[in-house]
Amino acid sequence: MHAYQALEARFRRLNALREAAGMLNWDMSAMMPAGGAEARSEQLAALQVICHELVSDPALAELLDRAEANAKRLDPWQRANVREMRRDWLHTTALPADLVEALSRARNRCEMIWRQARPKGDFAAVLPSMQALLDLVRESAAAKSEPMGCAPYDALLDEYEPGGTAARIDVVFDQLAAFLPDFLGRVLERQATAPQPLAPQGPFPIAAQEALARRLMAVVGFDFDHGRLDTSLHPFCGGVPDDVRITTRYDVDDFAKSLMGVLHETGHALYERGLPAAWRTQPVGAARGMAAHESQSLLMEMQACRSPEFVEYLAPLARAAFGGDGAAWTADNLKRMYNRVSPGFIRVDADEVTYPAHVILRYRLEKQIIAGDLALADLPGAWNEGMRTLLGIKPPDDGQGCLQDIHWYDGAWGYFPTYTLGAIAAAQLFAAAKAAVPEIPAAIGRGDFAPLVGWLRQNVHAWGSFHSTDDLLQQANGRPLDPQAFEAHLTARYLG
Amino acid sequence: MHAYQALEARFRRLNALREAAGMLNWDMSAMMPAGGAEARSEQLAALQVICHELVSDPALAELLDRAEANAKRLDPWQRANVREMRRDWLHTTALPADLVEALSRARNRCEMIWRQARPKGDFAAVLPSMQALLDLVRESAAAKSEPMGCAPYDALLDEYEPGGTAARIDVVFDQLAAFLPDFLGRVLERQATAPQPLAPQGPFPIAAQEALARRLMAVVGFDFDHGRLDTSLHPFCGGVPDDVRITTRYDVDDFAKSLMGVLHETGHALYERGLPAAWRTQPVGAARGMAAHESQSLLMEMQACRSPEFVEYLAPLARAAFGGDGAAWTADNLKRMYNRVSPGFIRVDADEVTYPAHVILRYRLEKQIIAGDLALADLPGAWNEGMRTLLGIKPPDDGQGCLQDIHWYDGAWGYFPTYTLGAIAAAQLFAAAKAAVPEIPAAIGRGDFAPLVGWLRQNVHAWGSFHSTDDLLQQANGRPLDPQAFEAHLTARYLG
Repeated sequence: MHAYQALEARFRRLNALREAAGMLNWDMSAMMPAGGAEARSEQLAALQVICHELVSDPALAELLDRAEANAKRLDPWQRANVREMRRDWLHTTALPADLVEALSRARNRCEMIWRQARPKGDFAAVLPSMQALLDLVRESAAAKSEPMGCAPYDALLDEYEPGGTAARIDVVFDQLAAFLPDFLGRVLERQATAPQPLAPQGPFPIAAQEALARRLMAVVGFDFDHGRLDTSLHPFCGGVPDDVRITTRYDVDDFAKSLMGVLHETGHALYERGLPAAWRTQPVGAARGMAAHESQSLLMEMQACRSPEFVEYLAPLARAAFGGDGAAWTADNLKRMYNRVSPGFIRVDADEVTYPAHVILRYRLEKQIIAGDLALADLPGAWNEGMRTLLGIKPPDDGQGCLQDIHWYDGAWGYFPTYTLGAIAAAQLFAAAKAAVPEIPAAIGRGDFAPLVGWLRQNVHAWGSFHSTDDLLQQANGRPLDPQAFEAHLTARYLG
Repeated sequence: MHAYQALEARFRRLNALREAAGMLNWDMSAMMPAGGAEARSEQLAALQVICHELVSDPALAELLDRAEANAKRLDPWQRANVREMRRDWLHTTALPADLVEALSRARNRCEMIWRQARPKGDFAAVLPSMQALLDLVRESAAAKSEPMGCAPYDALLDEYEPGGTAARIDVVFDQLAAFLPDFLGRVLERQATAPQPLAPQGPFPIAAQEALARRLMAVVGFDFDHGRLDTSLHPFCGGVPDDVRITTRYDVDDFAKSLMGVLHETGHALYERGLPAAWRTQPVGAARGMAAHESQSLLMEMQACRSPEFVEYLAPLARAAFGGDGAAWTADNLKRMYNRVSPGFIRVDADEVTYPAHVILRYRLEKQIIAGDLALADLPGAWNEGMRTLLGIKPPDDGQGCLQDIHWYDGAWGYFPTYTLGAIAAAQLFAAAKAAVPEIPAAIGRGDFAPLVGWLRQNVHAWGSFHSTDDLLQQANGRPLDPQAFEAHLTARYLG
């Protein structure tokens, strides 16, 4: 027991320092004036170095060995905690310090060049620094794959989706890729014969948008004693479980985008807040991974808040908030607007039917690139060909093609699949919640999210990182990750 | 040189971590919801422990010894930097870890009890925990006094006013205490025969107050690319030199209080921003101490922004901001309002003529208490007697007497004198600035602070901690700290 308790003390300190970094990152995006950037990056770098030193301390490795050797004396949560500590240790110690530093520099350089290349659609301009970054990413994938006992791509994926494998994702995504093109064709056909949505006319004052957003956050269950809503260029959910900071950005000509974005981030926030309080400072108390996180945001945004019941509830509130009147403000029109399907080039603007195609494309390409089966120089061609196959459209330039997302240019290889894994899990969990608590849809129609959030707390949030994603899903809905519920959801909503 | 450079690297990291803690403290006061308190105190405690470990690392002591032994090879700024590192090391290592922890706990407990005792004026309720805290404060003063080679009270003072001594302060304060009572009598006599100030009638909408505050901050020279203005319960200046965060609080019935408060904090902010950029991450690059800091805020608020020239400039802006009209909004009335002298019980509400009496009283009492010459049980009586002697008034209860300020109950003994040392220094510096750049008052009257701020940057801000406070003043105005300029200022403004 002694080794285990010493580990808890070390990870408690580590957690506090990482939380400090998390708050400073939030501040950087939501509060900091531009002139504070240099000092802030010194602060964050110092924290990162300290955290790296804490985890890579040889004494910690020894404690881990001893705790694992005596695992039988630990209770199941403690054992799971040790497992998560080991995972943290593996990711931290697998890379030599000079590789970590080189990666950090290559990432900054590539991102900077990408910021200028994207608006010009100039892939050639970013190619050399992207190649330099990719070489280091592949080097770290190789360095991690041996101690972690997995393929290089899976070692990258594991950072975002612990225990995830390409073999598992291939099955799931292939099934979805087989379903979607034909399904999309039928949805577009059906849409063509139905009434077209009318766009409510703005401007929509930001103060009114914010007031409505806050009201709906409270309706969904956001606790303002333990969190904030602010604005930032790129909306995100940051902060710490007991002080969750979500952000949005407002467009005076379109209230819907910000509103659904806030509900999305509120889903993330509820997950953080619902994590097991008894394990706040320990690895096992953290969120399971990005797929589980995205399942909570997409469940809230896509499953719950674009449901007909919620839009019925929302319509009069939106009319009152903006003084709206007429055909564009009826619940039926808002439903059409919120569930419009339209193939496009840009992932972040995609609806839930076409979104998976964007993700599957990126996943397949990054897997090939990491494996060395696709050269970066051939990426634009492969991208455009994939868009044609999956969505039947061809980007007019690389800015609307393979340059659109920051992830690869920021070194986040292995992240993309978690978006659609999350969408699939969201459908499974929402279906299971409704099966267990049949009044959930009616309650949502009254603005009562307690039955839904109560089920999520008990079946997802409170488990932290105790289970793998598949075990979490198995326990909550009787089966591991499986696109069937997602396909059923799409079919019911768009062809029902 | 090797030891010196290693020290710079260590203090650079230390500075980044302390800056991180500073930003988290700002957030705690200006942004954090109440429910975030527990996680935040874990974050701050972890940072404090790490910083303590960095400074008390025996290897750092060895580097310091070596750098001092080879001081001749360093340039003057490097030598001053080593001197400041030693000072930091002395304060950090003088106290055993268990005393630091006991102090932190006693401080929290006493402050908590004080928060409840103050509104009830119940000194007896806080006495036991105040005594427990004081015992530890005296223990740490004794522990520091030996390695620092100074008296216990001076060891406490040194944390806020480096190199300051009670012997020096006694001379300055005694001179001022001899001047003030008679002077105050003459001011009150003069005021009684002059027109009474009229109070502009509110309400003054917070948005209008904030807009005016921001406008005047910009006029004075605050750079919003390197700082922010927010609200908090207790106004302060936080953040870091390149990202200065000042706060205020608004009262819809009184715009003047917040406005002058903002100008006060802007004085602090300009000092931080003007610190030597080449020494940003090092001890010698930090502000000289609390007296120097307060000299910059009081120079801006009291000397510059309550001057007749500035009030002439301000009056039309205030009228426009609040739609004011009539006799209460004339520059002459605002001058009378901003320079009203009125003895009262509460330090933070005091005017600049009576403020020193509040400080001198606290200084004399805390010196006696630390020396063991005054028992805490006798504090209320000694307080009331001191108020009678210095200001001729007696508090109706201890809530308006010795319970009013947080400092003693929060363990900040040795802090109080810096307020009035700052006021004295402000008068010396403003007089010197005007002597060197005669157009300063006229420029202020046009809303042009560049001549004043330029002089301050060059003669105060850019020196960081290179000089002692007295040397800094000597260089800037030809003499060390001396109340003569302050007395001359008061005489000119109130009897001129």
